[in-house]
Amino acid sequence: MGTITKALEMLNFFSRQRPEIGLSEFVKLTQRDKATVLRHLAELKDNGFLEQATDTKAYRLGPAILRLAGVSEAIYPLRDRVRPIINEIAQQVGELTHVALLQGEALSPLFYSDVKMHGTQVNYNEGELLPLHATSSGMAVLAFSDPAFVDKVLSHGLKPFSNRTMTDPGQLKAQLAQIHETGFAYQEKAFDGEVTSGGVPIFGSSGQVIGAVSVAIPSIRQSEEKTQAIRAHLCDAMQRITTAVGGIIPPEHAHKWQQP
Amino acid sequence: MGTITKALEMLNFFSRQRPEIGLSEFVKLTQRDKATVLRHLAELKDNGFLEQATDTKAYRLGPAILRLAGVSEAIYPLRDRVRPIINEIAQQVGELTHVALLQGEALSPLFYSDVKMHGTQVNYNEGELLPLHATSSGMAVLAFSDPAFVDKVLSHGLKPFSNRTMTDPGQLKAQLAQIHETGFAYQEKAFDGEVTSGGVPIFGSSGQVIGAVSVAIPSIRQSEEKTQAIRAHLCDAMQRITTAVGGIIPPEHAHKWQQP
Repeated sequence: MGTITKALEMLNFFSRQRPEIGLSEFVKLTQRDKATVLRHLAELKDNGFLEQATDTKAYRLGPAILRLAGVSEAIYPLRDRVRPIINEIAQQVGELTHVALLQGEALSPLFYSDVKMHGTQVNYNEGELLPLHATSSGMAVLAFSDPAFVDKVLSHGLKPFSNRTMTDPGQLKAQLAQIHETGFAYQEKAFDGEVTSGGVPIFGSSGQVIGAVSVAIPSIRQSEEKTQAIRAHLCDAMQRITTAVGGIIPPEHAHKWQQP
Repeated sequence: MGTITKALEMLNFFSRQRPEIGLSEFVKLTQRDKATVLRHLAELKDNGFLEQATDTKAYRLGPAILRLAGVSEAIYPLRDRVRPIINEIAQQVGELTHVALLQGEALSPLFYSDVKMHGTQVNYNEGELLPLHATSSGMAVLAFSDPAFVDKVLSHGLKPFSNRTMTDPGQLKAQLAQIHETGFAYQEKAFDGEVTSGGVPIFGSSGQVIGAVSVAIPSIRQSEEKTQAIRAHLCDAMQRITTAVGGIIPPEHAHKWQQP
């Protein structure tokens, strides 16, 4: 392992649970000798990637990271990061593929791609907020959300969008438990009577769910084989998108999206 | 210069103007040999600090930076970063010191500290948005804002807050030109008939103005000596706060806040 990698990997030890790390804790975590660790810490600090608390002398993530993230986000907004991935997945799966981000209690579309290679296609409205309880994207998000947030969403009167929309909180919770188990949400004609879709969550920098990626097809093309193909492509998509937006998949859930 | 520093400094070459950098450009920028540059680039890329465009092979800032910034912001919100600096400056200057961030066409208070060591004190309302044209913070922001933004702000009917509030766009522009020159905004009784304040801008990750830090005093304590002391402490404060929030002071303006 190169020196640069050794130093950069030290940054990965920080988390909400571990906001500050002292020298001796770093020695333990890296299992390297104190002189080496100190040298690496000094260089990271000199470049603003770490800073040191004046009182405890413990290290924490420094301002250079915020500065570079500001530059990075100005150059490549999230939309630009997901665009090439979504375009590629849409091409592979041959169907409308889209990413939406959680915004309050709905999903806000970020980017979509439709290859239009069939006789009919899903009519996708880029400007429309998507309800959580009636879409595969929304159910994928809810299945990995904080239970208090789920209760809040389900406690409102839930609007039916088609005659197949599930609006009973108990039934929805049972379905969310299944989605949480498998990592894959599937909604048949729940948002639109002619559309079926599959969705998986995407995660942010602390492993929290921040949105979903889905494939929507005219229900007329629905088949078990198609569903399995969609699921496989979405597993690939969610891993690549989560990485591209600077997120991490919580390790305890990661196996749900690993290809067999 | 250590290996880690050499690698981390390569990240600083990226900006809005230079979103992607190819291998040969990196060789030119760093003035190091190609083999060394390639080795550093490979390690930065392996750790997600850089990524490579699939078509051009040019490098750009990678997702690890967004991820770490997310962790960093979750651990230390901006408010927590400025708190120790503002507390210290308020103690040194012996007067109410506060930071506010630009939000639309007003300033939103982020943090303040008042040491209350005098017979009278400024009544500071933490919840109140501050107008740009009538406060030293706001004028410090406008003086370093895009001219189109300034025109927009000055084109509305400007509200007088005291009988000393300047509301004439021409007069305000003349004052902004002066503040732009000196880096220091001074407002005597313009927002409140009993308060005088001095303010300086703070800058974000692309060198854009994002807010201001100010000291406000009861006008009764006003003196030339006091003003000079406030100005000196604010020059120190704006440099420390800009760094703490991941910003950079545009090099062409930096001399305005350097202590003599």
